[in-house]
Amino acid sequence: MNSEIIAIGSELLSPYRQDTNSLFVTERLNQLGITVAFKTIVGDRPKHLVDAIRSALSRTDVVVIMGGLGPTEDDLTREAVAEAMQVGLKRDPELIAQLYARMAARRLTMTRNNEKQADVLDGAIILVNPRGSAPGQWLDVVYGKHRKLVMLVPGPPSELKPMFDEECVPRLREVLPRRHIATRVLKAALIGESAADARIAPIYTQFTDVETTILAHLGDIQLNLLCSKPILELAQARVDELASRIEEELDDLIYSSQGESLEQIVLLHLEMQGATLSVAESCTGGMVAERLTSISGSSRSFVGGAVVYSNELKTEFADVSPTLIERHGAVSREVAAALAEGIRVRCDTTLGVGVTGIAGPSGGSDEKPVGLVYLSVSDGKKTEVVERRFSGDRDRIRHYASQTALDLVRRRLM
Amino acid sequence: MNSEIIAIGSELLSPYRQDTNSLFVTERLNQLGITVAFKTIVGDRPKHLVDAIRSALSRTDVVVIMGGLGPTEDDLTREAVAEAMQVGLKRDPELIAQLYARMAARRLTMTRNNEKQADVLDGAIILVNPRGSAPGQWLDVVYGKHRKLVMLVPGPPSELKPMFDEECVPRLREVLPRRHIATRVLKAALIGESAADARIAPIYTQFTDVETTILAHLGDIQLNLLCSKPILELAQARVDELASRIEEELDDLIYSSQGESLEQIVLLHLEMQGATLSVAESCTGGMVAERLTSISGSSRSFVGGAVVYSNELKTEFADVSPTLIERHGAVSREVAAALAEGIRVRCDTTLGVGVTGIAGPSGGSDEKPVGLVYLSVSDGKKTEVVERRFSGDRDRIRHYASQTALDLVRRRLM
Repeated sequence: MNSEIIAIGSELLSPYRQDTNSLFVTERLNQLGITVAFKTIVGDRPKHLVDAIRSALSRTDVVVIMGGLGPTEDDLTREAVAEAMQVGLKRDPELIAQLYARMAARRLTMTRNNEKQADVLDGAIILVNPRGSAPGQWLDVVYGKHRKLVMLVPGPPSELKPMFDEECVPRLREVLPRRHIATRVLKAALIGESAADARIAPIYTQFTDVETTILAHLGDIQLNLLCSKPILELAQARVDELASRIEEELDDLIYSSQGESLEQIVLLHLEMQGATLSVAESCTGGMVAERLTSISGSSRSFVGGAVVYSNELKTEFADVSPTLIERHGAVSREVAAALAEGIRVRCDTTLGVGVTGIAGPSGGSDEKPVGLVYLSVSDGKKTEVVERRFSGDRDRIRHYASQTALDLVRRRLM
Repeated sequence: MNSEIIAIGSELLSPYRQDTNSLFVTERLNQLGITVAFKTIVGDRPKHLVDAIRSALSRTDVVVIMGGLGPTEDDLTREAVAEAMQVGLKRDPELIAQLYARMAARRLTMTRNNEKQADVLDGAIILVNPRGSAPGQWLDVVYGKHRKLVMLVPGPPSELKPMFDEECVPRLREVLPRRHIATRVLKAALIGESAADARIAPIYTQFTDVETTILAHLGDIQLNLLCSKPILELAQARVDELASRIEEELDDLIYSSQGESLEQIVLLHLEMQGATLSVAESCTGGMVAERLTSISGSSRSFVGGAVVYSNELKTEFADVSPTLIERHGAVSREVAAALAEGIRVRCDTTLGVGVTGIAGPSGGSDEKPVGLVYLSVSDGKKTEVVERRFSGDRDRIRHYASQTALDLVRRRLM
């Protein structure tokens, strides 16, 4: 079964923004056995919208229309679908009441333009949106003699994703023939994409019935395995077999065999061992702490730490002696170790992490170039320090440094 | 003048890969005064390709087709354009000779399938590709009674970008009426998209010659203004006039009138006033520090601070008294204020910021629900605290909290 995803919004036709929702929707559709044949990105002009929707209906059976459901003048998706499909659009009094209630609960004034979010296409099922004001709509209709499934979903990812999972996927599953798809996601840290591929290609190419995709992003490698069979157990057995072969080959580079993030794995290891962690960050400026605290429940093993951007704070919060800094420089093996051990003692945790480096683009020298980062982990008995030279821009260097810091903790806990 | 960009390749319809070439092409087209009205992503199936090309020709004047020019069986762009436009396709002997020479120079065998790269559409101008084997093609033809400009360019960015700049842009410039484009980017913090639109729509709708786009993302609003005129000064005057009218209306909600980020603006204000800043973060877990340190040169006014996730660290690093925490709770107006003033004193900075709240999804209560955040800024004389109730998931709550913290500093410095 073929589908088309339409992303609506003039901003998506600018040089600055890009539709990313379609990647999520594609993944979900593929899992249901639906191929995405076209993606169309279209702006807010009524004529263009109608044209895009008509094209999609003429060439695919499932059409997912994302965005343009809000209250502004630019939000014209409902009107465009009505015109393209020649169906009526009626304001739903119950939805209006819900909009008023929602606004009142947030102490916001319900302006008139908000009411258009209550317009419903004839024959549509309303898809509830607890996370936003604009409800979605589901149409299962005959159009040009063919059955078409049309979904209108909101553009903000925080609204679209749960709505698609909770409202669209179950409805699609009911309508579609049953398929069995097994997937596995493996993750590895700090190995290059081509290096990883050179090692595992001889393995996965033997599994012609498993689709293997390698994604690389800022020191993180993700391997997606997907197999489709008439019987679920067969599909599962094949992806599991390939997964173990890859895990054997990449060994401890693999940090996750079920798709967890590196921060999740670190927190999991900490919790299992009843250990706690603190960090003292210079060049990463809070990124390690931010990544760990992005995980709900992180407070059980991560207590916090310090962002010690200035030399004074390295002393104030991690007891790094000023003479040590003077002697070796703030970016040095010695200061990294002192940060790790100092923050560990001050925060009274099992492990302490220290990061110091030159994120650039300025501040580098011949001796200590941009990208030079020292990372340390200490448990009071053993203080380990690694030196890395990352390439790329400030953002890339900081990401690689935070990734390396987390991986250092993971390896210590293994 | 309207255009459509077609990106060809089945991998661009997977959940893992995305067309990014179109952002580059869009920027170049916009600079020439050509609007991108549609982007279509389509796979390698002949029927789909022909359909996508026909749709594009029926609705736009300029069509840029990217990819599918290589030697493999999946490279079907030339054939699809020929069929969609009903023009002939002939193998060019001179191009074949060039392909043989190219292969020989690289000591590669010229296989038969390589020859299809020498197929040229009737009436097309060949666009040379010194960086790859597949040449591009340029068509300036009448199709369905209208003049159409159609460009076939290769998919690899390293081939596409120089070819577009060297071969397509000069030809487009010759063909197009001379236009000049002026742009402005305004940014506002912590106003909803619909609230902002309700206030400024009455203004920008009067400027029918300026294209206004509103982008909203996690408490950040970006207004893109674009005007195209035969004379640059006229275009600039119009966007500037609209920009000042919007700035008047939104007043101090606007934090940037030239596109800078909120963290850049905060650092700019700090530096201009010779002030320094430190932060004590609980629920944002380092996000405020991370955002500030993402900017190169931030160390001139941002010294660092502490991530005080546990109660003990609130005392250890920001001198918040344990009895204050016990009496009011860690998430309270009083603790936020104590964090701001405590970290300011400990870091010896002009301003201190404190953030404490419940990011969820767990940890909330009736009295202190998920999303409740207290934010404080102190300069030693005056300690200001604000209470906010953010909705959404953990990620959204943390982003809004960090945005509010930065905006609080900006307002204090104004």
